[in-house]
Amino acid sequence: MQNTTPQENYIEVLDKGFVKLVDFMGSDLRAVSSARVSFGGVSKGEEKDKLLIKYLVENGHHSPFEHCYFQFHIKCPIFVARQWMRHRICSYNEISARYTEVKDEFYIPTEFRVQDIANRQGSIVSKDIDNKALLEIYNKSIENSYESYKKLLAAGVAREMARCVLPVSQYTQFYWTVNARALLNFIKLRADNHAQYEIRVYAEAIKKIFKEKLPWTWQAFENLTKEEK
Amino acid sequence: MQNTTPQENYIEVLDKGFVKLVDFMGSDLRAVSSARVSFGGVSKGEEKDKLLIKYLVENGHHSPFEHCYFQFHIKCPIFVARQWMRHRICSYNEISARYTEVKDEFYIPTEFRVQDIANRQGSIVSKDIDNKALLEIYNKSIENSYESYKKLLAAGVAREMARCVLPVSQYTQFYWTVNARALLNFIKLRADNHAQYEIRVYAEAIKKIFKEKLPWTWQAFENLTKEEK
Amino acid sequence: MQNTTPQENYIEVLDKGFVKLVDFMGSDLRAVSSARVSFGGVSKGEEKDKLLIKYLVENGHHSPFEHCYFQFHIKCPIFVARQWMRHRICSYNEISARYTEVKDEFYIPTEFRVQDIANRQGSIVSKDIDNKALLEIYNKSIENSYESYKKLLAAGVAREMARCVLPVSQYTQFYWTVNARALLNFIKLRADNHAQYEIRVYAEAIKKIFKEKLPWTWQAFENLTKEEK
Amino acid sequence: MQNTTPQENYIEVLDKGFVKLVDFMGSDLRAVSSARVSFGGVSKGEEKDKLLIKYLVENGHHSPFEHCYFQFHIKCPIFVARQWMRHRICSYNEISARYTEVKDEFYIPTEFRVQDIANRQGSIVSKDIDNKALLEIYNKSIENSYESYKKLLAAGVAREMARCVLPVSQYTQFYWTVNARALLNFIKLRADNHAQYEIRVYAEAIKKIFKEKLPWTWQAFENLTKEEK
Repeated sequence: MQNTTPQENYIEVLDKGFVKLVDFMGSDLRAVSSARVSFGGVSKGEEKDKLLIKYLVENGHHSPFEHCYFQFHIKCPIFVARQWMRHRICSYNEISARYTEVKDEFYIPTEFRVQDIANRQGSIVSKDIDNKALLEIYNKSIENSYESYKKLLAAGVAREMARCVLPVSQYTQFYWTVNARALLNFIKLRADNHAQYEIRVYAEAIKKIFKEKLPWTWQAFENLTKEEK
Repeated sequence: MQNTTPQENYIEVLDKGFVKLVDFMGSDLRAVSSARVSFGGVSKGEEKDKLLIKYLVENGHHSPFEHCYFQFHIKCPIFVARQWMRHRICSYNEISARYTEVKDEFYIPTEFRVQDIANRQGSIVSKDIDNKALLEIYNKSIENSYESYKKLLAAGVAREMARCVLPVSQYTQFYWTVNARALLNFIKLRADNHAQYEIRVYAEAIKKIFKEKLPWTWQAFENLTKEEK
Repeated sequence: MQNTTPQENYIEVLDKGFVKLVDFMGSDLRAVSSARVSFGGVSKGEEKDKLLIKYLVENGHHSPFEHCYFQFHIKCPIFVARQWMRHRICSYNEISARYTEVKDEFYIPTEFRVQDIANRQGSIVSKDIDNKALLEIYNKSIENSYESYKKLLAAGVAREMARCVLPVSQYTQFYWTVNARALLNFIKLRADNHAQYEIRVYAEAIKKIFKEKLPWTWQAFENLTKEEK
Repeated sequence: MQNTTPQENYIEVLDKGFVKLVDFMGSDLRAVSSARVSFGGVSKGEEKDKLLIKYLVENGHHSPFEHCYFQFHIKCPIFVARQWMRHRICSYNEISARYTEVKDEFYIPTEFRVQDIANRQGSIVSKDIDNKALLEIYNKSIENSYESYKKLLAAGVAREMARCVLPVSQYTQFYWTVNARALLNFIKLRADNHAQYEIRVYAEAIKKIFKEKLPWTWQAFENLTKEEK
């Protein structure tokens, strides 16, 4: 990670979350040489290497991208982590609310969205909504929940039980190690406009880091995605 | 599933949850014949087949058990589902709180446990605790959260945002398909006394169903586990 | 497997190989209900269910197809098995040439193909080739190899060492358990005209069985594949 | 990989094979901090960190070791690669005999082993064997096979077909990327004395590299393995 500054590896997301690149192994050339082992060869210069990457991406030969690995440290709300952890070809280690007391950190939206009629699972921004009043309901609910949590703890209730009253807006943290192939799939699904806004902003942050680390691979992937649309 | 009654395939767990066996493929003999393909053979009678299963289990040759599959329908609280879905070698489809309105169904414990001093992550039953008073705090917190959820929905807030105030005690449902090898690993970790009580009771229910479907495999596994202790 | 005759589950492939369906769990409706758990629902009648499957296939929502499982017994040459076993999201148990003596069963082509100029990895049928003469070279080579194997065994050499002289045209057998999602991916890659003929015929046999077991899913997959071309 | 010399990352194996470490990501401390994210903490000094690793290894908490990655370049005979590629939680890219002509490189043993009577799958060294005579049979068989291969190619037969006559002693090459958890499992199974000698020597070479990169983890794993015996 010599050619990146600390700033580029740390991106703030939502009101209290972040995406932090902890480590990275590989390069565009790694994918190239992993693919060329099939042909018994190595790099053939930038132009040909880029064409090979384009060919691999477009023809579904994705295994060469499995040799590049990203490790992230993520902080996000539980309901985002729940969508995230449906991705199985990768590794997670998450902070445990059984071991440690949960901090007073919850996701507070800046703007409430209304139910989308066209897209049954989605939401859209609307002017016909009293954000201030809604925020009051939201905040009060979360404050009440956290207060109850603290009361239960104070009365001696085990952390693993007391946390049952805490809402899914609670922030959690985890380490995530994932290869470039699985990460492209994550970005494809989670940066998509069918994904919930709150995970999309994480996928966008990850996309930036991906692009910086594997620019040729990203270019080929982006071109293909555009063509498919 | 001819030799089981509907009752045996449906087990109530916690206050509102369940484990339901939807389908099953395989048998102890399936593992035997899958293993014997290595030796170019098939069943050699009950006694020898049982010995083979014992040998496979004890010597870490677990791949033959991957040919037996269970499909379950599970209903459990979110904090249990979160531990569950860390298991990656299996398939999930879960109800989505983005598509459907969440029902007023939350886990209500019958008895609060206190923090275990010896086991930092665990909890123990204690008489020095006022269950009735604690339950009041707990219930009120959950009622408040659900009320806020309904208010936000009534004001037009999208389901995917309104659910942020709901606690992790909320019940969810999912389909889970898993092979016998991965299931034994699940039972080993989640029926263990280091696991949280609320997931342990699910693991125990699954253990019953496993035992009924693959009795020889279960026997071999249980004997080994006893020896290791 | 009530609605299939034994014949339909056993398909001869190449000169000595086969694909045999040992067991199957699921149905098109299983995928439907696994998907509908997300929406909190079940079957809505054939027309709507078919549309849902179409939607899932076309929009990359493939997890519901992971709840249907196929178990096959396969007999194929080693060089085909080598390509096959690069597929990792599935289970294998293969006959071992360490335990059992290898039989005199090798793949003998009926027609030799020449190197394709356009497709560097492929081959094409050609009239400018003396099949009879080539077959003689081929057969003699394999006979020599097998004879050497038998001589080494006769001299007391361990099976695991003696087999080193045997060619990759040797037939092997394995059990293969795989879900419908991974199987569609297998068919997509291996029934493709870039795949080697000798694995393509296996993929075609499997396609037939898939189509019979999950006709709606197959239909949706086939339509999509046609559109992409 | 700053603290290793090129020599330490390249180990010759068998007569023509090798294990080469191409890249490595992580450290013992990486596993420690990945585990400590569960407790909300980081390194606590060498002594405590070593104890944590010991605890993780002994209690089956292996997920923190998934954040360390090794990439190897391997050259080994096909029959060894076949055993190797049964390991599925890792990534492979292998040289293709469809794209490139196979070189005259085959595994030639220095000593033939006889069938083990006690261990039906194994082999043992014996003095009652005429190594020189056996080697002659072996070498001649392989030479014949390679000659046939060349003849078929010369006659225009496609590479993918001509290679069918080549024996499984043929050397192949592949890139292999694998995390520390899966690698420990590989070493456990393949450096075991039930494994065939020809893969065991590869597992031993990998063990050396593992030990150098993750010494604390290796120590904990080795201690546990000794206790179990």
